[in-house]
Amino acid sequence: MGRGKFEYLSEKNGEWWLTEDEHGDLKLSYRIKDIIFDQMSDFQHVMIVDSYNFGKMLVLDGIVQTTSKDGHIYNEMITHVPLSIHPDPKRVLIIGGGDCGAAREAAKYEHVEQIDMVEIDELVVKACKKYLPEVSGNLSDPRVNFVYEDGVEFVRNKEKEYDVIIVDSSDPIGPAEVLFEKSFYQSLHHALKDDGLMVCQSQSPIFHDNIMKQTYQRIHDVFGKASMYTAVVPTYPGGLWSFTIGTKQYMNPAPEKVQGKETSYVNAEIIQSCFTLPEFVKNSL
Amino acid sequence: MGRGKFEYLSEKNGEWWLTEDEHGDLKLSYRIKDIIFDQMSDFQHVMIVDSYNFGKMLVLDGIVQTTSKDGHIYNEMITHVPLSIHPDPKRVLIIGGGDCGAAREAAKYEHVEQIDMVEIDELVVKACKKYLPEVSGNLSDPRVNFVYEDGVEFVRNKEKEYDVIIVDSSDPIGPAEVLFEKSFYQSLHHALKDDGLMVCQSQSPIFHDNIMKQTYQRIHDVFGKASMYTAVVPTYPGGLWSFTIGTKQYMNPAPEKVQGKETSYVNAEIIQSCFTLPEFVKNSL
Repeated sequence: MGRGKFEYLSEKNGEWWLTEDEHGDLKLSYRIKDIIFDQMSDFQHVMIVDSYNFGKMLVLDGIVQTTSKDGHIYNEMITHVPLSIHPDPKRVLIIGGGDCGAAREAAKYEHVEQIDMVEIDELVVKACKKYLPEVSGNLSDPRVNFVYEDGVEFVRNKEKEYDVIIVDSSDPIGPAEVLFEKSFYQSLHHALKDDGLMVCQSQSPIFHDNIMKQTYQRIHDVFGKASMYTAVVPTYPGGLWSFTIGTKQYMNPAPEKVQGKETSYVNAEIIQSCFTLPEFVKNSL
Repeated sequence: MGRGKFEYLSEKNGEWWLTEDEHGDLKLSYRIKDIIFDQMSDFQHVMIVDSYNFGKMLVLDGIVQTTSKDGHIYNEMITHVPLSIHPDPKRVLIIGGGDCGAAREAAKYEHVEQIDMVEIDELVVKACKKYLPEVSGNLSDPRVNFVYEDGVEFVRNKEKEYDVIIVDSSDPIGPAEVLFEKSFYQSLHHALKDDGLMVCQSQSPIFHDNIMKQTYQRIHDVFGKASMYTAVVPTYPGGLWSFTIGTKQYMNPAPEKVQGKETSYVNAEIIQSCFTLPEFVKNSL
């Protein structure tokens, strides 16, 4: 390693560190063993680094997106919950999710016939498939259809095509901001079948209370029915993370659907208990 | 602020930072506004600092113990769960818990008659009572009996005195190490009435899997009955935190006991769902 041009990479006493800057007042520094992949795409600086504490990590513009150590938690929770609510999901759309982890989890449902994965940045997918198999699972399922374009554009004119849509976005700053707008949720509503449902990550209840509330409210406005669940994501600030479901019909998970699936975090009881919200989150909504 | 003698305090471009070093490979840096209290006790360096992200924080030897922003989560979870399992707790012992948060929560149970709080470091209690009322709640309930001595010594010769014992310790390095030993759990068993129960924090399932497992195993060996629950503690590494209960008789919480209590995290559903363990934690035990 011999790079100093990115402020989030630094060397001190022969040790290399990646430092994540959370809105200027909180920093997380990960000691890293090696930079395995490092390239600028048309959209961002894409790195795969090997860290001491979290194993290999996908880092976009200096922000840790997923890791070998805990990436399964987020990916299992954003996928198995909606797929266990819909009684017979056949066509699944994933917007974002370049680490391929959500698509990998969706592919564990044998009755799913097609998984469209629309990720704007092809380089992220290629890097994760090659260098981060712990998360991407060397995804080569023939049902996964990779589309490298803007998710907002892709979904704009779709009509009643999908059973489940998973919005696996990064934070609502920069390119992903539009994925938190009401007009986008209206497109998703339009793209879903009459009994379809969507899920998105809706940020931290502790640090982004306002975004979480706004996201829930917008989705509730568009769909008429919404619900929220949480999971722990150790590498995201605050640890606790929220997910919001917008649904045209089905509300309740069928926990038995996850039984027998190879998972590390999710199980039948978690699928149900994740909808139990802490008092301050309930009050906030 | 004008101090540079502790390596966890540093100044950069006119900004002050507290940097927590997690076993050398992971660092958390909090930007701080002010050091409100700063004194060496006989045991450790005690500080109350005001931070931008977590409000006021209790910091012992450079490690964040509790904060205004999220301290209620830990304190509510270590207290309301055991107190809702025991049908009629009258005598409660808290070992550690110098921030007074656990004692404050226990005092919300009107049938509790006595709360012995045994904290080795009087300075921590005094600092928190004066400068961290958001956590300590200006605790002045007459049922709370403050004892400033070694918890291990205090409990050694107690026999069938307590209904519930809460071990609110710091990490098992240095002074708190002995609070994770089997002989200590045997003392607790001896100090509990015939239908008494204990709880302790048992570290992170993600980073301290071995300590978590060992703690559960030791408590299970001593009590014959044990159970584990989890909560999110944003300022602890990994976010997800485990708690272990050892009990002579009662196993199931009565969620209605927390209803009407003034809480920010805990509610009736959380009291039940917290026992749902992620798949990797179940497998680990």
